[in-house]
Amino acid sequence: MERVESHASFGGRQEVWRHASTSTGTEMRFGIYLPAQALAGEKCPVLYWLSGLTCTEQNFITKAGAQEHAARHGLIVVAPDTSPRGEAVANDPAYDLGQGAGFYVNATQAPWAPHFRMQDYVAQELPALVEQHFPASAARSISGHSMGGHGALVTALRHPGRYRSVSAFSPIVAPSQVPWGQKALTAYLGADRASWAAWDAVELVKGASERLPLLIDQGDADEFLAGQLQPHLLQAACHAAGHPLTLRLQPGYDHSYYFIASFLGEHFAHHAQALRG
Amino acid sequence: MERVESHASFGGRQEVWRHASTSTGTEMRFGIYLPAQALAGEKCPVLYWLSGLTCTEQNFITKAGAQEHAARHGLIVVAPDTSPRGEAVANDPAYDLGQGAGFYVNATQAPWAPHFRMQDYVAQELPALVEQHFPASAARSISGHSMGGHGALVTALRHPGRYRSVSAFSPIVAPSQVPWGQKALTAYLGADRASWAAWDAVELVKGASERLPLLIDQGDADEFLAGQLQPHLLQAACHAAGHPLTLRLQPGYDHSYYFIASFLGEHFAHHAQALRG
Repeated sequence: MERVESHASFGGRQEVWRHASTSTGTEMRFGIYLPAQALAGEKCPVLYWLSGLTCTEQNFITKAGAQEHAARHGLIVVAPDTSPRGEAVANDPAYDLGQGAGFYVNATQAPWAPHFRMQDYVAQELPALVEQHFPASAARSISGHSMGGHGALVTALRHPGRYRSVSAFSPIVAPSQVPWGQKALTAYLGADRASWAAWDAVELVKGASERLPLLIDQGDADEFLAGQLQPHLLQAACHAAGHPLTLRLQPGYDHSYYFIASFLGEHFAHHAQALRG
Repeated sequence: MERVESHASFGGRQEVWRHASTSTGTEMRFGIYLPAQALAGEKCPVLYWLSGLTCTEQNFITKAGAQEHAARHGLIVVAPDTSPRGEAVANDPAYDLGQGAGFYVNATQAPWAPHFRMQDYVAQELPALVEQHFPASAARSISGHSMGGHGALVTALRHPGRYRSVSAFSPIVAPSQVPWGQKALTAYLGADRASWAAWDAVELVKGASERLPLLIDQGDADEFLAGQLQPHLLQAACHAAGHPLTLRLQPGYDHSYYFIASFLGEHFAHHAQALRG
């Protein structure tokens, strides 16, 4: 574990750490915001944020305005990179596969299987690391954007009892049914669609043993809404399964961090209520 | 005038425009946040933001979290690029001279004089453009960071009555006395130091006809504090001249946008009080 950045921010500190990951077999980086309470040694709840395609650990910590909300609610916020990286790691020239596009799954197919184990990383290794090395309690929530919204929903649905709350911005809710997801799941898991269901929020809500309410914000001017995101598929699945969902279509908003920043305060309030309420 | 970006943000819109500048003889870009009141056609006051070395119009609009504050106070926020740019424009390989480092002066020396007229641009052309093309009132304030903090102080001090309020983060207060400033002023204005005084806040407060209060935040862990910024020089000049100054040393904060974001809300409140109070 090595700290590579540390900045005072809203009375706490925004840091970036790198470490050798046992899940991915590579160096991984994550951003972590430590509110003043954590700096004083008080154990604080943790909100995990999963970013979207092409992002690193930098996008969320520089563009979302999260620190103000984290400081106000006394939350630690952890934002990992979106995939393993490096010359020894498989890649693809497209922006939506390989490095920067891990989709938060455990890959089973060549050439991805050796390093692309992002689900193990975000659900197991990273929380264990955070709770060992920082003043973090075991109270966890999870959120994310686009590919990371998919990651947040799937990670929470796959681990009943692990998270107190979950939310997403512009998530890929049905990767089995849209181009981004079909390309990634075929590459990482193979052509057998039966293996995809365990990584698809629309499929997972059908058999969810825990009825963790889902909070989703989606801009109605999002260029990826009709082709890649299709939140109505999750709405129909939740309705059929009796799974609680709050899906808010935000008029005029696009897919950018300007959208995330506009509603992030409300997501923090939602998570803080579950984590500290 | 062509709009090159437009994003819904906190009930308003964050836009980026480009236009042919008569001041610089180049294309210039600026970011503009239009709060909901402006979108509804109400004339709103304008806060101008001048960025620091290496920045474009993007840094402030993506990293500072300004939109939330602008929306709350009903302010338009205009953030121009930091210099003329392009293959036909003089440049220097160093990060602190030439493109991205205009220092908000009107250059008199070759090869800079033809295009590096950033003072005319930010003080005259840009406000006229904004007040003509957007629902902007003539109530103006100005702020900035580092080189842009210098720009904000100097522009306000050179134009008594033009701005309702001025503030700065980590400004270069005495360019005549520090390496960044000495290099830039020598290049843009020539070796005769007499010509520098009109572009140096410490010199300008000595003869200021308007006692516009200066609000400055400075991190005490800023790596440039001792070598380039030296706010005590402005403190001494203001004390000697009887010029009102609020200089706040913020413990633990560095030179980054994490610092700016942490205190930007207080600067917006200061400017909103002057613009709408």
